Amino acid sequence: MGAAGAIREDRLWQRHADMAKLGGTPKGGVNRQALSAEDAAARNLLGSWARARGFAVSTDAIGNLFVRREGSDPKALPVLSGSHMDSQPTGGRFDGMYGVLAAFEALEALEDAGVKTRRPVVAVAWTNEEGSRFQPGAMGSAVFAGHYDLDEMLQAKDWKGAVLKDALAETLKAAPALMLDGRPGFPLDGYVEAHIEQGPRLENERKTIGVVTAIQGSRRYIVTTHGEEAHAGTTPRAARKDAFAAALRIAQAMYEATTDKDDTLRFTIGRVDVAPGSPNTVPGRTVFTIDMRHPEDAVLEAHEKKLKEIVAAKAAPCSAGIERVTAVPPTIFDPMVVDLVRAKTNELTLSNMDMPSGAGHDAMHIAHLCPTGMIFVPCERGISHNEIENATPQDLAAGARVLVEVLVELANR
Amino acid sequence: MGAAGAIREDRLWQRHADMAKLGGTPKGGVNRQALSAEDAAARNLLGSWARARGFAVSTDAIGNLFVRREGSDPKALPVLSGSHMDSQPTGGRFDGMYGVLAAFEALEALEDAGVKTRRPVVAVAWTNEEGSRFQPGAMGSAVFAGHYDLDEMLQAKDWKGAVLKDALAETLKAAPALMLDGRPGFPLDGYVEAHIEQGPRLENERKTIGVVTAIQGSRRYIVTTHGEEAHAGTTPRAARKDAFAAALRIAQAMYEATTDKDDTLRFTIGRVDVAPGSPNTVPGRTVFTIDMRHPEDAVLEAHEKKLKEIVAAKAAPCSAGIERVTAVPPTIFDPMVVDLVRAKTNELTLSNMDMPSGAGHDAMHIAHLCPTGMIFVPCERGISHNEIENATPQDLAAGARVLVEVLVELANR
Repeated sequence: MGAAGAIREDRLWQRHADMAKLGGTPKGGVNRQALSAEDAAARNLLGSWARARGFAVSTDAIGNLFVRREGSDPKALPVLSGSHMDSQPTGGRFDGMYGVLAAFEALEALEDAGVKTRRPVVAVAWTNEEGSRFQPGAMGSAVFAGHYDLDEMLQAKDWKGAVLKDALAETLKAAPALMLDGRPGFPLDGYVEAHIEQGPRLENERKTIGVVTAIQGSRRYIVTTHGEEAHAGTTPRAARKDAFAAALRIAQAMYEATTDKDDTLRFTIGRVDVAPGSPNTVPGRTVFTIDMRHPEDAVLEAHEKKLKEIVAAKAAPCSAGIERVTAVPPTIFDPMVVDLVRAKTNELTLSNMDMPSGAGHDAMHIAHLCPTGMIFVPCERGISHNEIENATPQDLAAGARVLVEVLVELANR
Repeated sequence: MGAAGAIREDRLWQRHADMAKLGGTPKGGVNRQALSAEDAAARNLLGSWARARGFAVSTDAIGNLFVRREGSDPKALPVLSGSHMDSQPTGGRFDGMYGVLAAFEALEALEDAGVKTRRPVVAVAWTNEEGSRFQPGAMGSAVFAGHYDLDEMLQAKDWKGAVLKDALAETLKAAPALMLDGRPGFPLDGYVEAHIEQGPRLENERKTIGVVTAIQGSRRYIVTTHGEEAHAGTTPRAARKDAFAAALRIAQAMYEATTDKDDTLRFTIGRVDVAPGSPNTVPGRTVFTIDMRHPEDAVLEAHEKKLKEIVAAKAAPCSAGIERVTAVPPTIFDPMVVDLVRAKTNELTLSNMDMPSGAGHDAMHIAHLCPTGMIFVPCERGISHNEIENATPQDLAAGARVLVEVLVELANR
């Protein structure tokens, strides 16, 4: 295969190593937060590679960065691929950056193989996906899709009080690119995002490619139990209203009720506060958080009902309540793109599995604009948002091969 | 009965009201911490009542206060009764104070009824039982019994850096009494302490008098579970090492293993720390405390074994450990005194039940010196260490009637 055959594993790996120097940490990770000097350096490096290949480099009013390889039909809508270059404060080399570099590698492979496409193919680096310095995350793609308001985002402040608008102006001054007119966003024909899995499933099942069918929906809850503080030495169990014992019964029943055969439902109790927190006082109040995720909203809805029933059934002799804090519906990727990713992976004889994404990605927003899909590659032990995040050159190249074949197909539609 | 008939409910109740003014709080409780100005005021008030009745007032080097009514035999060892006058920072009117005022009421009743005893009967107010301002608690009785070192205690500091020795000197200057020579402690023939139950059992079972058979032993533990932090969205349950889920299994099994038919074993998980405490991160570590109490050391020992087995059996796939922090053996009261309390209660036709004390008391230390027992009266809803602590004048008087009869019997041995 022409385009896939032109993907160069060594080049792609070297580009990751070069990028990892920008904000590199002693532990081998990166601290390259959005709109920092390190972010600007990464933009400049990508821009210099792009210009060396004759690709046009442009940006928009929220700082999304585009590298464009023209197609043969000047009127055809472009196909987009990419991810983000900003990192967590103690982030890894691959989260986001892989999607940008795989898209750029695809552009280079097309060039090297002399493959012409009808539509332009554009690599993109979305601004501020992590949301570490400025909140909210996935900002660039959300503004591009019209989900967040540009002016509101420009007023966002970091914890030192710096305004995003100023940080963006500084970044674009340090890493200049052609500014696209008007509000961010332009018509697209398709979008494909490559990403490390950030979970252990591909590694555990010894698969090279994850055919991403959806980004799961997520709901967050707070559960509170109210009991009565009492003396640990004098109060018999029958006379106690132990708020932690009640929380325990509720949590245990919830773990059981959220056990599913295919291990797709994610149920996490991450934060637990027990008051007054004295070793010799029976707890009077317990608060805990629930993070629940699933690719199907109906499953979340059904389990929310179960959680409420459990709280009502298991609290006595305490009282308890459950409050929903957030509910983000699932993103279902376009079956045309999903099928295309699976088909190209099979053509390349790469082992693969269909899977939903556990984490959120920029593709969540772009999926509302055009047919969208994602390609996952394994990461070591599923560890991400961590300086020891790791992936193999082989897997990264395999993902890029699938990506370029999918892009060629989409760009010739 | 002469002595019991001379107990005056109104006088005893009024004395509680008078004492409650010293350190009285807006919510009706008291803040009369050890060796404070309020403590000195309470000592002076008791001293003035004592001197008005011609009783000798003395103190020792740790500030324990003695009010002595002489017996007919100048060589006979005295019988002691009392408790403490210091309170928690947000304490009640009855905790400790009742034991002191019941003993003093007993002395007055003996005087009023013209009852002569062979042995002296001495009312005592032990210094710093609560241990709120200066640690450890039960200090006066422990020094008296030789369990704590006097010089070490005199060097104890409060949280502002004030030294106990200075606070004691100030207190005794403000509330002077004859200083007994030498180290605290003198030979005793018996000790009886009256106290509010600080638990709900007497009220629940509609009994007036608790015949206290023992002070239960207590053991404290820390349980730690170690798992692995993971992304709440991407990590399937099968791949998780959820430290809180492990703590939950362990805690649940422990609650079950510590359920006893007669509801005597006390098992409390009072403090729980879950790390890192982020709603979307699977917990990597959980630490919780256990407070376990029972009147029989063998029962504590057997259950400690069970707790260890549970930790070993339920931790997987996490690792876990249990560490014993403290172990205080039970105090078994002298059967002669216990039987005497029960017999006198029955003679007075007061409803009663045998029970262990859930909380620690000064009697814990004095029991090592001489035949010792305790008398409990009900407190409202079992609430203590709280400004809303309450008891009825009738119950307080009933306890004092039992006390004076027991003291007469012991003082004539």
